[in-house]
Amino acid sequence: MDYNKYIEIVKDYPKEGISFKDITPLMNDGKAFKSAVDEIVEFAKEKKIDIVVGPEARGFIVGCPVSYALEVGFAPVRKEGKLPREVIKVDYGLEYGQNVLTIHKDAIKPGQRVLITDDLLATGGTIEATIKLVEQLGGIVVGCAFLVELGYLDGLEKLKNYDVLTLLSYK
Amino acid sequence: MDYNKYIEIVKDYPKEGISFKDITPLMNDGKAFKSAVDEIVEFAKEKKIDIVVGPEARGFIVGCPVSYALEVGFAPVRKEGKLPREVIKVDYGLEYGQNVLTIHKDAIKPGQRVLITDDLLATGGTIEATIKLVEQLGGIVVGCAFLVELGYLDGLEKLKNYDVLTLLSYK
Repeated sequence: MDYNKYIEIVKDYPKEGISFKDITPLMNDGKAFKSAVDEIVEFAKEKKIDIVVGPEARGFIVGCPVSYALEVGFAPVRKEGKLPREVIKVDYGLEYGQNVLTIHKDAIKPGQRVLITDDLLATGGTIEATIKLVEQLGGIVVGCAFLVELGYLDGLEKLKNYDVLTLLSYK
Repeated sequence: MDYNKYIEIVKDYPKEGISFKDITPLMNDGKAFKSAVDEIVEFAKEKKIDIVVGPEARGFIVGCPVSYALEVGFAPVRKEGKLPREVIKVDYGLEYGQNVLTIHKDAIKPGQRVLITDDLLATGGTIEATIKLVEQLGGIVVGCAFLVELGYLDGLEKLKNYDVLTLLSYK
């Protein structure tokens, strides 16, 4: 499916000079959303994953249906203070700003095969931080899947040692 | 399925006196998560819903797999400033604090049949605000579904005019 028409480009959001790719029209369309999730499910199937991990909040939108379809668990990565039990954390820089991400210490068991999902790959900072968290817990990142990739930000370069699926790319 | 053992109770989080019900162990277990989502899907099927709406971030975790399974769209309700295009908004009080929720103006078409999902029904403030947003856009709320309900906080009383499913209740 060509997902292009389901992505709305919003100029100067969240700040001047950023051209935001809004995926909400894609999610709003039941057929397009199902098709996108199913492509990720197909990509994940052959990897025999044990668990899906996604950063808040849009990583949940992509990852939770994938985990449901594959009947595997989902582990959320969240901003500091948002997970209620013992966490490990990592600092990272992102396209616009600075952040801390956390994951529950018991979210991944050593040796589990992990698929990481998010809506969009920009500079790759968020995903790099998410990978660090997963690997620190002993998980094996067997793939990363995104709806959209911003080719001009070189996020793929950061992920060159990983198997990556993106459904739509902006050059 | 008895979901009780998948909910972790965290004392004094996010602040003293609050006994937080953590649903992440349920999501972490593929079979339990699928079973929970499937119960909501069954509840929703007979209601012929057009779209699922959920407040960030845990409403996405429940709602997105439901929307995927039913092949209908999903519309996120988010905190102020988090949705990039034109929104309507509502102020509300919640169990601990004060907040503003927003939804994209074009997220719901008048007459659409809407299922609202969240992980947990506490005082019902978040869901009441979400209902207001949906109804302001002309949507018909045909059901609300939660993994967990805190019976001692009377959230169900606020929703007495709606059809509500909860999978687990704390008295």
